[in-house]
Amino acid sequence: MDYIKIFSPATVANVSCGFDTLGFAIANLGDEMTFVKTPTKRVDITEITGAELPYDINSNAAGVVVQKMLKDAKADFGIQITMHKGFFPGSGLGSSAASSAGAAFGVNKLLGNKFSDLELVKYAMLGEEVACNSKVADNVAAAIYGGFVLVRSYNPLDIVKLPTPKKLRLVAIHPQIQIRTEDARKVLPDQINLKDAITQWANVGGLIAGLYTKDYKLIGNSLEDIIVEPHRKKLIPHFNKVKNAALNAGALGAGISGSGPTIFALCESDEIAENVSVAIEKSYRNVGMDFEIYSSKINRKGIKILHSY
Amino acid sequence: MDYIKIFSPATVANVSCGFDTLGFAIANLGDEMTFVKTPTKRVDITEITGAELPYDINSNAAGVVVQKMLKDAKADFGIQITMHKGFFPGSGLGSSAASSAGAAFGVNKLLGNKFSDLELVKYAMLGEEVACNSKVADNVAAAIYGGFVLVRSYNPLDIVKLPTPKKLRLVAIHPQIQIRTEDARKVLPDQINLKDAITQWANVGGLIAGLYTKDYKLIGNSLEDIIVEPHRKKLIPHFNKVKNAALNAGALGAGISGSGPTIFALCESDEIAENVSVAIEKSYRNVGMDFEIYSSKINRKGIKILHSY
Repeated sequence: MDYIKIFSPATVANVSCGFDTLGFAIANLGDEMTFVKTPTKRVDITEITGAELPYDINSNAAGVVVQKMLKDAKADFGIQITMHKGFFPGSGLGSSAASSAGAAFGVNKLLGNKFSDLELVKYAMLGEEVACNSKVADNVAAAIYGGFVLVRSYNPLDIVKLPTPKKLRLVAIHPQIQIRTEDARKVLPDQINLKDAITQWANVGGLIAGLYTKDYKLIGNSLEDIIVEPHRKKLIPHFNKVKNAALNAGALGAGISGSGPTIFALCESDEIAENVSVAIEKSYRNVGMDFEIYSSKINRKGIKILHSY
Repeated sequence: MDYIKIFSPATVANVSCGFDTLGFAIANLGDEMTFVKTPTKRVDITEITGAELPYDINSNAAGVVVQKMLKDAKADFGIQITMHKGFFPGSGLGSSAASSAGAAFGVNKLLGNKFSDLELVKYAMLGEEVACNSKVADNVAAAIYGGFVLVRSYNPLDIVKLPTPKKLRLVAIHPQIQIRTEDARKVLPDQINLKDAITQWANVGGLIAGLYTKDYKLIGNSLEDIIVEPHRKKLIPHFNKVKNAALNAGALGAGISGSGPTIFALCESDEIAENVSVAIEKSYRNVGMDFEIYSSKINRKGIKILHSY
């Protein structure tokens, strides 16, 4: 393979109760990227559209991932990359993860599938480190594996692909402010109550049991975050208003996507998703801030090949 | 029904990572109890064998449960109870839970199945409160539902029955000291590191995913407790020695059963369970303390009716 064009999905990390451990991929939101083999052993980013990102391959998440993989594989070729961002960095929807995971996936195809999915997650985490100053795996794992994923352990890295009940739909609102992952981490306490932690891990258990049994009520009841959301929601204008609007319109649950500001809701049908979308829009219409609303199925298969030769 | 004789199983609560939220029932260890309808509206405990427990119905866990249920059901009869303890109070194997859950189950049969399983858990929790000064549900829920259970929420109470992979076997050692649940709670900190909590809830997620997918390796990797075990193991003589012996002999994982001192191990086959049993026994043989070793399948169906008319 000399050329590959891919779609790398946006992702929702944390999923309320599962801070730093759960994530899922979004079907109709993401980036397009192309990777072309070149005879000279260098990595170049030749085009970036849709967002302002560095062309310098040591500052760009995708650039860092591609370099490291070519080096480790002792490849005798170089790669030219183009990136077409379908959504905004700093949205909390895994923008750098889509670039990093897409890069790992694309290069691996040009290398003849040398690496496993787990290894691709490890490479993509290098991109996350460059972009967010934090080597997290939840977004990149969701992008690579598709559907819902659990980052069971970092040392050693262990990713569990979870089932994705078919009726689940995502609705999300992205208020057009930017929150840096780094800043969203600073508002979190180092210490938490054991009592609260128990509540949280019981909900993680409930959410995962709900995904396996397609128990939408259990999924909804488990979508609660009493550890991180109380701190981070202060960074997001009108968070409570949006969350309540979503729940009142029938959403199973709602919370902060990744480090925000995007607020996500999970719904049990297209019809409810439509109602939630309308309710969320109404709740934000007059607050004097631009916003985007997304409505989507869950991406079940991860990164998709659009074209290759 | 005028008479019922039941078997109420011993249970392992917490299951390493799932402090206060996970539990499972043991197949071949538990209490036998009988309940007989009497025309006079009083509750009497007429016989207790196998352990020293109060006959006073306001101090005995089973007595408290039976009284409350008869009162709520406006029953026009009384009940005579006998209790034959098959294992020791203070072992960490849910002794009071077996009595409390058994009482709730037995009375419910004499009441014509008036209450749901969830309601039985609530009644049984009253017995736990009397016996342990703590209204926990993990042991009683495991005894009533059988197999593995998740206490997803206390308010409102929400119990999720989890699957029990068929090959799983339990081995446990009960060093003959007694630890009161109350004392075991006192050694725990009120506050924990957020970082540790994340590790713990990722393992809860992994354990539950492993139970659904019969992934024994994932179950084993997830049987880790970095929050409670480091504190409580100090109360249990030679804990590390036993745990290491179990793991070296092939156990999937090992930890403290409930509030201890019993140490449990989960294994993937009868053969491994036998090896683990031998290794644990060897590790404790010369420490100068009496002990009991148990080896069992997982109880999958909860409390069992032995006889009724």
